[in-house]
Amino acid sequence: MAEIFVSMRNLNFLLYEVLNTESLCTLPYFSDHDRDIFDMILETGLALASEELYPALASMDKKAPVLESGSVRVSPVVRELLQACGEGGWIGAGASFQHGGQQLPDTLLSAVRLILGAANYSASVYPVLSTGAAQLICSFGSQELIDAYVPNMFAGLWQGTMAMTEPHAGSSLTDLKTRATPTKRGYYLLAGQKIFISCGEHDGVENVVNLMLARIEGAPAGVKGISLFVVPKLRPTTGSGLEPNDVVCTGIYHKLGYRGAPITQLEMGEHSDCRAWLVGEENHGLRYMFQMMNEARVGVGLGATAIATAAYYASLEYTKERHQGRPIMAKEPTAPQVPIIEHADVKRMLLFQRAVVEGSLSLIMYCSKLIDQVHAGPEEGRERHALLLDFLTPIAKTYPSEMGILAVSTGLQCLGGYGYCDEFPLEQYYRDARIHPIHEGTTGIQGMDLLGRKVTMKNGAAFKLFLGKVQQSIENAKKHEALQAECTQLSDALVQLQNVTGELLNLAAAGKTDLFLADATLYLEYVGIITMAWQWLLQATVAEAALANCDDEADKNFYLGKRTTCHYFFRYELPKCSALATRLLQTDGLTVKMDVGLFED
Amino acid sequence: MAEIFVSMRNLNFLLYEVLNTESLCTLPYFSDHDRDIFDMILETGLALASEELYPALASMDKKAPVLESGSVRVSPVVRELLQACGEGGWIGAGASFQHGGQQLPDTLLSAVRLILGAANYSASVYPVLSTGAAQLICSFGSQELIDAYVPNMFAGLWQGTMAMTEPHAGSSLTDLKTRATPTKRGYYLLAGQKIFISCGEHDGVENVVNLMLARIEGAPAGVKGISLFVVPKLRPTTGSGLEPNDVVCTGIYHKLGYRGAPITQLEMGEHSDCRAWLVGEENHGLRYMFQMMNEARVGVGLGATAIATAAYYASLEYTKERHQGRPIMAKEPTAPQVPIIEHADVKRMLLFQRAVVEGSLSLIMYCSKLIDQVHAGPEEGRERHALLLDFLTPIAKTYPSEMGILAVSTGLQCLGGYGYCDEFPLEQYYRDARIHPIHEGTTGIQGMDLLGRKVTMKNGAAFKLFLGKVQQSIENAKKHEALQAECTQLSDALVQLQNVTGELLNLAAAGKTDLFLADATLYLEYVGIITMAWQWLLQATVAEAALANCDDEADKNFYLGKRTTCHYFFRYELPKCSALATRLLQTDGLTVKMDVGLFED
Repeated sequence: MAEIFVSMRNLNFLLYEVLNTESLCTLPYFSDHDRDIFDMILETGLALASEELYPALASMDKKAPVLESGSVRVSPVVRELLQACGEGGWIGAGASFQHGGQQLPDTLLSAVRLILGAANYSASVYPVLSTGAAQLICSFGSQELIDAYVPNMFAGLWQGTMAMTEPHAGSSLTDLKTRATPTKRGYYLLAGQKIFISCGEHDGVENVVNLMLARIEGAPAGVKGISLFVVPKLRPTTGSGLEPNDVVCTGIYHKLGYRGAPITQLEMGEHSDCRAWLVGEENHGLRYMFQMMNEARVGVGLGATAIATAAYYASLEYTKERHQGRPIMAKEPTAPQVPIIEHADVKRMLLFQRAVVEGSLSLIMYCSKLIDQVHAGPEEGRERHALLLDFLTPIAKTYPSEMGILAVSTGLQCLGGYGYCDEFPLEQYYRDARIHPIHEGTTGIQGMDLLGRKVTMKNGAAFKLFLGKVQQSIENAKKHEALQAECTQLSDALVQLQNVTGELLNLAAAGKTDLFLADATLYLEYVGIITMAWQWLLQATVAEAALANCDDEADKNFYLGKRTTCHYFFRYELPKCSALATRLLQTDGLTVKMDVGLFED
Repeated sequence: MAEIFVSMRNLNFLLYEVLNTESLCTLPYFSDHDRDIFDMILETGLALASEELYPALASMDKKAPVLESGSVRVSPVVRELLQACGEGGWIGAGASFQHGGQQLPDTLLSAVRLILGAANYSASVYPVLSTGAAQLICSFGSQELIDAYVPNMFAGLWQGTMAMTEPHAGSSLTDLKTRATPTKRGYYLLAGQKIFISCGEHDGVENVVNLMLARIEGAPAGVKGISLFVVPKLRPTTGSGLEPNDVVCTGIYHKLGYRGAPITQLEMGEHSDCRAWLVGEENHGLRYMFQMMNEARVGVGLGATAIATAAYYASLEYTKERHQGRPIMAKEPTAPQVPIIEHADVKRMLLFQRAVVEGSLSLIMYCSKLIDQVHAGPEEGRERHALLLDFLTPIAKTYPSEMGILAVSTGLQCLGGYGYCDEFPLEQYYRDARIHPIHEGTTGIQGMDLLGRKVTMKNGAAFKLFLGKVQQSIENAKKHEALQAECTQLSDALVQLQNVTGELLNLAAAGKTDLFLADATLYLEYVGIITMAWQWLLQATVAEAALANCDDEADKNFYLGKRTTCHYFFRYELPKCSALATRLLQTDGLTVKMDVGLFED
């Protein structure tokens, strides 16, 4: 087991030096808080992670959940964790005082989520799911629903879930079939099947509250006919008891990784007695769900970053301790071997991991601050912040997910044969990390979202906002000698990005939507790299300013490490944009036109 | 379970249409054979793979080997397989008649190994290891050693292994410590420990014959003092019996994947009674081992390709059957959903896999033909073929290993959530594939080998030979209309490759070896992509010629599929070279100069 799984120094850097999180306390919503409170919360989060979650990392993986006569047995750690999260106020930490929350900024809470996720990703999912589901009820549900469900969810006694996917409707939500029949008793009767529902059933809680999409009888076809319901496993009786609600867990999946959390199949209404309570208005379900979904997508990026963070520190520790080989310039077989971190190729592998991990985290926490500003910032900035957040969401979901896998794989590689064995946690991280490009919308879906929706929306307003932000960061960086080349490089990349985007938009304008979107996944990768370069320039600018007045040796190393990693990113990663631009500019529709018969053998 | 795990059509294409394998039968060594025999062997191999290996794929993964009081229990399939391989003559198939072999060309046998590896990689490793170890004895051992060990290894009764790694000598073989003390009785007494020894102990055979590196007392330091020994688990007694040889299996590794084969720790000489027989001359061990190692490295590339092949066909099958979403140009929620293979992004993912899989296989079988030509071809060509093979070996090991992982990952992605679950084989392939950039020399080691050794050896003769071969393929391709753009693109890439290599060699000439080799891993990736482009051009040239006279619909689809995949490679993959060239030309030594203290937090 590695000793370190997260860097508090880096979290403090992002929170206070880059994002100026304490400034959020000037907003009325957050005005009860200050940096002392933030620091205390970080400390408590780290203690929970170190003492409860991290020690259970391997055991929760090896003893995966088991389904026994409709009940899913999970690690006893889950119940302890959810109770601790309930008592500590973690689950409702971001919710309003009115709903029983603590009104803490998401910027801070994302740092806590990173700590918990780095310690044990599977475990960290349970409370986060409850947070999201409860917030949906708070945002769109009636006071009755809020009173009936939210307090127990915030207390960690009831599990919240997000139930969308069905056997024939995975990426294609338009094809949802689960049916809700109105009754005259204030609820609907639900019938259908859901698959891939995270934590849809387990014995770490008394009850499960599914936020479920379904189609009310007679609703329009497609996504315009989808409504959102609260569908509990046990429903409250007229007294204060609970009774079964005809929701049955019919299966759990045996997965590559992420094994500490059960992914379930649920069957509703087998006995025509599954009651569902409508959240908000009929047929607005997808819009409601997507409020949660956007934050869930940034959350996936955060989970991916968390795993890659832990993998980075585990491999860093190993490379300092493992002695193998000698310096290239002084090869003398009788000289002692050196720690492998001394080898240039190992430093390259560590820099790659660090670039992905700290760049991703920077972007995610930047998005969290946007969430705070949309939610509680001054009225006049909200639309702008919401637009930028919309634009960045598919990137914040995908870059960390896709590149996090490669970062973890590189961490594993640093350990050689040992990386492939379960004496070290890398092999588990490698398995755990692979979920992220899949859940909450695959990478392909995110690409279509970015190019097909976010780039074009409001006449390109979000895209322009993004370009403006990057441009502004370049201006700020220009005064630092060490970042001159990077400023030029990123400026050039922005020009190229506008050319590429312009060419693609011409296709859209000509009605060639299929060609326009053919390589949307590559476009997402392309914009992702530029976004990371921007985040690295942001961080390096802060580091350069700090270096000017820095006496502390450890601080100096930290800031010089930021500079070097920024240089690494611009020299090794940003050049990849040119290859992607080359392809994106071809617009020959190779994949659109290819006859699928050519795959026959 | 997918129905198809390998394409015989593609193997036939490579064997007979691209590589003209039957022409090898004009060489005296192979003159007993003809295409009918080859076809029969392929058929038998496919039957063995389909009937024995493939059905055991999941069970061998789930029931991993167990160590019990020194003995490793493996799946009963292993014993059956080794016996079938022994009886069918598979293990010694490439060896000379004199040694009990069948003198079959490696080009053909590599096709068989692909079939077996695609069916069940773990299972396929057992016989291949025996082949390699037995061939080492045949090549360099005394007649006594050959008689004592080889027949039982070829018969599948005894397992062969390659035992190099020690706790403090993984990548750094120079630091091997296992000690051999001469005796006057024709053998040495061995003492030491080996780790990560594939199949070093298991109950599927009567005996294990380790080909082991050790240092004879008083030998020079470093790699010049390493000798090769036969160290059996049980040694032949003066009668015809066997007795224990003081070799103990002290542990097995619990691994991410590749679980059907045990990776063992061996302890020799605990009771000062471990006898070892020298192979060839003292202190020449590494050179001998590297004869086997080079073929083993191409073999790793083949194993990686085999797994990626099976993953490709499994995902192809799924994408044809899974209905989800609708065509972009005709989105109508009430229209039926289409098979996901119809979506451009899914076709892109399949083309990526196919490009990696069939490109890698083409390179590997090209190398196998070089092995045949070195071994049995006319004298005057041998040095040239050996040089080209030396140059291509690190590429044939690494491109399939590194890109195979991404191909399998892409296959997994095609299945969405199901790809992450063990109902489908993709998650196992994903785990199995991760071993290949590690064993038989990590990717970092291969990079140093290519740039530091192969590019420079004999005044760049191998590199020039490589350039010449690619140039010649471009000339051959030029007559085909459909390959014009590809010819230009690859010519340009060759020019750039020479520039980049020239710049790097300037550093070497200036004595800056550390800067020269700093990004050797990237150089390997760079040359790997160009090599693949070459192999695709080779294949596409054959396909274009065949298309000119093709009436059969299935053949036409196959050749057009080759053309399209070649186009895919040149448009999506080859452009990645420019980013790598950009970095390689910087030679700023970022990773060489970076102080490791900057990684401190």
